Amino acid sequence: MRIGVLGGDGYCGWATALYLSARGHSVSIVDNFARRQWDHELGVQTLTPIRSLSERLKVWQELSGRTIDLYVGDCMDYDFLSAYVKSAEPESVIHFAEQRAAPYSMIDRKHAVFTQVNNVVGTLNLLFALRELQPDCHLVKLGTMGEYGTPNIDIEEGYITVEHNGRKDVLPFPKQPGSFYHLSKVHDSHNMMFACKIWKLRATDLNQGVVYGTITDETALDEALINRYDYDEVFGTVLNRFCVQAAVGHPLTVYGKGGQTRGFLDIRDTVRCVELACLNPAAPGECRVFNQFTEQFSVLEIAKLVQAAGHKMGLDVTVEQLPDPRVESEEHYYNAKHSKLIDLGLKPHLLSDSLLDSLMNIAIQYRDRIDTAMFLPQVDWRKPTNARNLKPQGVPVAVSR
Amino acid sequence: MRIGVLGGDGYCGWATALYLSARGHSVSIVDNFARRQWDHELGVQTLTPIRSLSERLKVWQELSGRTIDLYVGDCMDYDFLSAYVKSAEPESVIHFAEQRAAPYSMIDRKHAVFTQVNNVVGTLNLLFALRELQPDCHLVKLGTMGEYGTPNIDIEEGYITVEHNGRKDVLPFPKQPGSFYHLSKVHDSHNMMFACKIWKLRATDLNQGVVYGTITDETALDEALINRYDYDEVFGTVLNRFCVQAAVGHPLTVYGKGGQTRGFLDIRDTVRCVELACLNPAAPGECRVFNQFTEQFSVLEIAKLVQAAGHKMGLDVTVEQLPDPRVESEEHYYNAKHSKLIDLGLKPHLLSDSLLDSLMNIAIQYRDRIDTAMFLPQVDWRKPTNARNLKPQGVPVAVSR
Repeated sequence: MRIGVLGGDGYCGWATALYLSARGHSVSIVDNFARRQWDHELGVQTLTPIRSLSERLKVWQELSGRTIDLYVGDCMDYDFLSAYVKSAEPESVIHFAEQRAAPYSMIDRKHAVFTQVNNVVGTLNLLFALRELQPDCHLVKLGTMGEYGTPNIDIEEGYITVEHNGRKDVLPFPKQPGSFYHLSKVHDSHNMMFACKIWKLRATDLNQGVVYGTITDETALDEALINRYDYDEVFGTVLNRFCVQAAVGHPLTVYGKGGQTRGFLDIRDTVRCVELACLNPAAPGECRVFNQFTEQFSVLEIAKLVQAAGHKMGLDVTVEQLPDPRVESEEHYYNAKHSKLIDLGLKPHLLSDSLLDSLMNIAIQYRDRIDTAMFLPQVDWRKPTNARNLKPQGVPVAVSR
Repeated sequence: MRIGVLGGDGYCGWATALYLSARGHSVSIVDNFARRQWDHELGVQTLTPIRSLSERLKVWQELSGRTIDLYVGDCMDYDFLSAYVKSAEPESVIHFAEQRAAPYSMIDRKHAVFTQVNNVVGTLNLLFALRELQPDCHLVKLGTMGEYGTPNIDIEEGYITVEHNGRKDVLPFPKQPGSFYHLSKVHDSHNMMFACKIWKLRATDLNQGVVYGTITDETALDEALINRYDYDEVFGTVLNRFCVQAAVGHPLTVYGKGGQTRGFLDIRDTVRCVELACLNPAAPGECRVFNQFTEQFSVLEIAKLVQAAGHKMGLDVTVEQLPDPRVESEEHYYNAKHSKLIDLGLKPHLLSDSLLDSLMNIAIQYRDRIDTAMFLPQVDWRKPTNARNLKPQGVPVAVSR
């Protein structure tokens, strides 16, 4: 199958592009390297030393004999994006190419506006390009479980049957997103539902949970293929950050009571979920939603798991509860359905001791690259500043390898 | 009360600014005249010959002795908008300053992107400006009944109690907007709810129905104060368009079966609803929603009312059912609640024969300005074009007054 991976140089995108290529699909990547630019802006870097995309693709070709085509450009640029669709003629297009960090969107007004315009316009451009040039292409769009917020009822997969005053309808699940980033994904979801309805496009909205892990079968083949491992307060996801903190003896930074419960999944399941969606496309006019995660944990439960794994490895791991910089419930009901991908054949990699060991071993392997200043939350939901990106970053992070 | 009217040169904005000024409030207007620009772009014009805003404001001052301050600029420009907030220090700000026509947003990709970016970023900028400079100011934001779509259950005012699997929560009412414009309002609503939650701003989201009428007590004082009367297929609302069609003996253009049912209100109620919202502000942290309309009609019912009024005046009025250029249900359940503004004291002007007579008399008075080519739908929901705004507009509309 001809599959386009928009944002194929990012954390989920890179692992997905290699997996799909290894599985025999004809893969093309679209990227503008914005994600690397944001590392420079914030003065942070991935724990793992990732190579340039051109080098990664060359090594992949040498090792696998498979070519991944690269199109460098921005989804905000319709001329570029439509030229890509015309040239690559994808049968499925996976859209990872968005600004994906809640704290980044909460830095200040400019970052909030950038996140919403970048994500919403990129997706609008893609919808118009598919309608115009490739109307039968299946759009697989990355949403987030964070679109739902934490309602006091069970979370369904995208739609809910509502009975009200003696009548009944199936309606989009009401959304209560918790950052300008999560809001941008809700905007995308509404735009996609509408475009599928009026133009008979096919789309799958993957409401993904918090991804952890860095190793997949393909990225493990050679250090040149290594994936990102973000642990900073802006782009780092919580389990990855806790493992790095454990590795350097820094307290695990739990926000508030730590009762914030979310869906989690292994990056090895991300790539498989995406392929399952591609192999079982939505029907024309259908905008279906899959909740893409495998297990629920509270942040404090995650911290306890990392603590236990650390103790087993002889590390002294403590937990520090910081004031929550976000505006969110620190204790709440949470029960989100996630059976549709299982029904399509997903066999989850559940969070295990061995995975935690492996994550911590990677953290130990690259510990010279760890900058503990990157752990602490500086972005506050209640007090955005208009000047963060103008602030001098102080002493640059020393890189000693 | 110091009240800002963003978009105060537009149809609802102008009537509102004058009404609030007449009621003794200290009113400032913000406008960038985008609405007048769109008339030039589309080659259309209001039936009524409106004066420049500076002339209108001068005449208003002469007649009433009251001054309305004018700030010319774009809400997309944060430097301008924040300077306005700083200077005017509004206690309430009414936000009409958005692109408000569904067909305009459906012309092509550029108009869809423009509508969403313009509306979403303008509102984001306003939220950030209030947070930074005037956090106690009450934001009164124009939404639309079209945000809800046509669900098969009763439509509540913004929120709905959902019982599901034995649990219960009050959640945002699920939205199914029917154009890229309506989607932009849904995006705004989500952004506002979030901003109120995290920053404790106060906001009222007025989900307004289809407005009809042109005369208010203030605009009737002098022809120089006359309000817009749009009847073209892009900006004209349905009742106004039907009255103009009846006046020139053109069939009333009903789309499809005409069973599309919507909430309607007289522009004299628009201005009163806005003042009621200002006088009864939301609490800090509250984002409340009022459904702002007074009666429900189907499009065919509206056509029949205009037909009857026309016959009474000796006009031969026929109804023509055109293929619906929109993607919408032509017959559906519709029952929308609208009690909150009544509870605050609204006494509705219901649609009456005399109002229809007055609308048709205005149409007859200005019939030399009517261009029948503006009646027919050219924007098709299913087939946007990328070139509409580049198409030569043919013979300019002759203006003979």
